[in-house]
Amino acid sequence: MALNVVVAGLPKAVQHAQDPDEGLWLTDEQRARVLGAAPDVRLEHLPVSQLNAGRGPERAPHAIMVETSGSKPSLDVEQGILTRSGLDVLLGPELRLLQSMSAGAEHLVGVVPDGVAFANASGVSAPAIAETVIAGLLADAKMLRERWRHQAARAWVELPARELSDTVLVVLGTGNIGASTARIARVLGIRTIGVNRTGQPVDGFDETTTTEHLHDALARADHFVIAAPLTPATRGLVDATALAAMKPGGWVANVARGAIHDADALAAALHDGHLRGALIDCHVTEPLPADDPLWAAPGATVLPHDSHASQLLGDRQVDLFVDNLSRLSQGRPLRNLVDLSRGY
Amino acid sequence: MALNVVVAGLPKAVQHAQDPDEGLWLTDEQRARVLGAAPDVRLEHLPVSQLNAGRGPERAPHAIMVETSGSKPSLDVEQGILTRSGLDVLLGPELRLLQSMSAGAEHLVGVVPDGVAFANASGVSAPAIAETVIAGLLADAKMLRERWRHQAARAWVELPARELSDTVLVVLGTGNIGASTARIARVLGIRTIGVNRTGQPVDGFDETTTTEHLHDALARADHFVIAAPLTPATRGLVDATALAAMKPGGWVANVARGAIHDADALAAALHDGHLRGALIDCHVTEPLPADDPLWAAPGATVLPHDSHASQLLGDRQVDLFVDNLSRLSQGRPLRNLVDLSRGY
Repeated sequence: MALNVVVAGLPKAVQHAQDPDEGLWLTDEQRARVLGAAPDVRLEHLPVSQLNAGRGPERAPHAIMVETSGSKPSLDVEQGILTRSGLDVLLGPELRLLQSMSAGAEHLVGVVPDGVAFANASGVSAPAIAETVIAGLLADAKMLRERWRHQAARAWVELPARELSDTVLVVLGTGNIGASTARIARVLGIRTIGVNRTGQPVDGFDETTTTEHLHDALARADHFVIAAPLTPATRGLVDATALAAMKPGGWVANVARGAIHDADALAAALHDGHLRGALIDCHVTEPLPADDPLWAAPGATVLPHDSHASQLLGDRQVDLFVDNLSRLSQGRPLRNLVDLSRGY
Repeated sequence: MALNVVVAGLPKAVQHAQDPDEGLWLTDEQRARVLGAAPDVRLEHLPVSQLNAGRGPERAPHAIMVETSGSKPSLDVEQGILTRSGLDVLLGPELRLLQSMSAGAEHLVGVVPDGVAFANASGVSAPAIAETVIAGLLADAKMLRERWRHQAARAWVELPARELSDTVLVVLGTGNIGASTARIARVLGIRTIGVNRTGQPVDGFDETTTTEHLHDALARADHFVIAAPLTPATRGLVDATALAAMKPGGWVANVARGAIHDADALAAALHDGHLRGALIDCHVTEPLPADDPLWAAPGATVLPHDSHASQLLGDRQVDLFVDNLSRLSQGRPLRNLVDLSRGY
């Protein structure tokens, strides 16, 4: 039986897109691998704009790989990202597998029809995101922004840069991204504390504790990384009280979802000096509005939700999709299935 | 028998100096530890300016801990650094231990009198220097300079940042700094190749090779870190030919001695795009002259020879000195002794 497959769109930072507005991106080698995943794959590689305009593929798809982040309810959707209505064009009675290119899935609760297997891309971007977090942490400790300012003035100024040994990192969320970050941090001599629902031990963390004890953990934290899924339990969890619980001079990164932290409280803590810095990759409204106080907050690094950017990501996503296509055609269990009742 | 001890000066970036021009820096706790290192320690903690002006301590010292980097022949010596003539004031027939706060020792060949044990501070700054190298590498891969430029303009621009997994790092010099850098790099998925005199294996490196095969190694290198002592064998080793042997788009760090690389060739390789970036902490003339082409070379990060800056360095140096004072008073073998005939 033929397997009708549709691939459409990808965030621009992942791989050089053929057309920046369309997110067309499969390389010839990647196309060949998708075509070889099962005996009779029929691949349509569609422009996002066509789907967003309501024009579907020629053949009703059995399996699709799409970037789903544009399907969240939002007034501003980026060019080149599949919208909710564009996704709807692909959802039909033939559909058996929806392979997302994102890790987060909270925006798909209620969207994916019953009977469709939904697989996320958890894990494929963890190495790049962990590197981005560590880059921000080291840039802060080594005072790189001040250094480049001095360099631009050709000024020879020694700075009291810091070493990360013997500092404490708290990570909310002990999945792939959190654990990858912790593993790098430990080699830097950082003590790592993971926070998850049950407090279960996770490789890479010196300690773990439950979400109920987040504030106790934060009281010990020099650095705090948010890497948890957005669920009813984490929405708004990092509020003004949580930030106030941190040691003075702390540093915060959010590489998960903007709705987990209180953006006003974070900007205020940076402005009043309670926090020494932050790296914020995700924002409730994206693109971040030009008048948002975070842009100019002291010590803040604003990223345009591309901490996952990597020359290796496209191949990893194709690997996952090809594996799932092969499993689907052979009736084997799929990988990275998401329980949308939990939201991750 | 009383042990006369003198401590003077330290680079300003190591620890907040009491007086930035004097480099006075022992904390009360550190003073107490030096005093407790042997039964009858008499400690004089002297301003560098007094020594540089030719006025010595009250008691001829048996052991001194000083920053020796200012004793190299140089027209421009930084304020707060002991000069060669300041060091000479401390060199007398009573002297038995000269504890340097630097790792490099090439400038002390011919300076340390026969019969004086010379110990360097190799190892104490390796963690901070390795962190600085990795900070530079990650900042380059994650395009932090471009990001902060976009942020200043409140511009939401996704960038094709790179991941370090599957790249290759070559390190010239497999001592403490080189091996510490390699250990962090490996956790980032980087393949590490060490280059040393004999090609002997060293923990932290996936491969090692001899200095004779440096160019072969560089042909495989995405990143190249110079962390070797300055000796007749390494002086000028990283010349235009070595840089040309690197893969196009390579990145270079020098955290050892400026005389190991050809500064003109490096600046030219940055300007013509053969190298994508560099982090240069050490320079033949320091401070780096304002008209040096490196300041504005594309992708260059110029550091004022303070890649070792760390809040932990002072304590580590005192630990080493206290241990050596104790060994000296008990007639046990000293640590970190340098063979000045080799120069390291």
